[in-house]
Amino acid sequence: MSRNIAVFGLGSMGYGMAQSCLRAGLRVHGFDVVSEQAARFVEEGGASGSFTAVASTLDAIVLVVLNAKQVEEVLFGEDGVVASLRKGAVVMACATVPPDFAKEMERRCADSGIHYLDAPISGGSVKAAHGQLGVMASGSTTAFAAAKPILDATAETVFRLGETAGAGSAMKAANQLLAGVHIATMAEAMTFGMTQGIEPDMFLDVISQCAGTSWMLENRAPHIISGDYTPHSQVNIWPKDLGIVLDVAKTAGFEAPITEMALSRYRKAVEMGLGGEDDAAVAKVYAAQANLTLPENQS
Amino acid sequence: MSRNIAVFGLGSMGYGMAQSCLRAGLRVHGFDVVSEQAARFVEEGGASGSFTAVASTLDAIVLVVLNAKQVEEVLFGEDGVVASLRKGAVVMACATVPPDFAKEMERRCADSGIHYLDAPISGGSVKAAHGQLGVMASGSTTAFAAAKPILDATAETVFRLGETAGAGSAMKAANQLLAGVHIATMAEAMTFGMTQGIEPDMFLDVISQCAGTSWMLENRAPHIISGDYTPHSQVNIWPKDLGIVLDVAKTAGFEAPITEMALSRYRKAVEMGLGGEDDAAVAKVYAAQANLTLPENQS
Repeated sequence: MSRNIAVFGLGSMGYGMAQSCLRAGLRVHGFDVVSEQAARFVEEGGASGSFTAVASTLDAIVLVVLNAKQVEEVLFGEDGVVASLRKGAVVMACATVPPDFAKEMERRCADSGIHYLDAPISGGSVKAAHGQLGVMASGSTTAFAAAKPILDATAETVFRLGETAGAGSAMKAANQLLAGVHIATMAEAMTFGMTQGIEPDMFLDVISQCAGTSWMLENRAPHIISGDYTPHSQVNIWPKDLGIVLDVAKTAGFEAPITEMALSRYRKAVEMGLGGEDDAAVAKVYAAQANLTLPENQS
Repeated sequence: MSRNIAVFGLGSMGYGMAQSCLRAGLRVHGFDVVSEQAARFVEEGGASGSFTAVASTLDAIVLVVLNAKQVEEVLFGEDGVVASLRKGAVVMACATVPPDFAKEMERRCADSGIHYLDAPISGGSVKAAHGQLGVMASGSTTAFAAAKPILDATAETVFRLGETAGAGSAMKAANQLLAGVHIATMAEAMTFGMTQGIEPDMFLDVISQCAGTSWMLENRAPHIISGDYTPHSQVNIWPKDLGIVLDVAKTAGFEAPITEMALSRYRKAVEMGLGGEDDAAVAKVYAAQANLTLPENQS
């Protein structure tokens, strides 16, 4: 059971998960390359101390970093944490990574007596802060048991997808394929509607009640309508995540042409300097092409 | 007010709408090129008689035909009905057609003293049969008033999108863009998942609770899981409807590359001889490419 934990990565998802763990009564250390984030977390009740000082007391670490490279760096890089953790501790890995990478991490952690839970998350920053995430998890029974207090604190739904790492990341890749395509398609449809005189707010009002709706449409279209591109989830995430999907697909000999086309829209957005904006800003790619004026920021 | 009506087109949508009108106490004539459908409707309570015999008694006609060509044929072709209707009757046009075509029909109907409600529908055959459709409607106040008993009988939600024809069809085009892309993307994601060992039923169970979900995914994925491609909505609909979207887009100087890619998947399905199957059969395009075996029919 994990009572003393450390969360690596205090971005929009990790910070919320760390807060949810605090609320559940866990002792939580927060680490981030941005030292202000770590300091802020201590002010809100997080435990203090360097990782080196606390490593041997930890039952679990939660990785909410950006990508596979960062996961590997935290676990096995210079000052990698696996070497400092006690045997029997669990790594709950929440980043979106290739399934084969998750399997490799599980194996290398096992070599040091550390359990590994392949545990990508879905739901966005609001659900992270409220302990209502969906967790697509796979790993050994022992890894699940060791991570249970964290899962209880952060997840509304835990999907148990298999007894080894990889299955969680595979499901996450399928989810990202859909989510990434749906955001770009929402942008395509909304701007298409604008060429026909359909205002974005009317578009959302009607489509959200019709067969064309999606979770992403209902979540992201309001950002365009309010002209607010504060990055709850950045454009930059999609070249990474859809890139993972296409790499995995290629290895499997699988063609995913709609995903490829959506990826091209996000890459175009990055080229336009929009990488740090909310991913709904992919609408600006369409607006620029068709010379449309999107709603201004109302706040 | 429309009490005596005729429904043209007794397919999966039109038949259900005609039934809903009967339940609401309207006198309903049903016409279809398939005479068995019309005969079946009379057995279930529909009014009998040829159109010529009853035309002058009708307050409204409802067009639930396949496309713009059929709308024009019914209204203004040889034996076109507009010439026989009394002045003040209303045409409620539910087919998916280009917005400019709807405007033209409204104008030509007005020349004969006939009101026209541009009224594409969304929701599928089950909602049609239960009087729970979404209707994306635009037209004059008079046209809305004249069609009210039919709207009350068939719709859960009536979106009033403007005072002239065209706006309803524009919104429907945006909805079809999304719906068509979402079905093909569901197929792409589900089969991608299969290459990673994710069974289709687990895919639906998890994704329907995550950010990657869509109305279409939840509606169509079960067809693939049960291996049942009974055509509730045919593959053939999508080359037509996405073709309309892309024609409208082209005229507006708008590029819709994700829609184009989804269209290519449906065209491929038609080439494979799947045009008459349920549109979830677009998954067979992906399965064939990646040499995957989709679930067999369980019934």
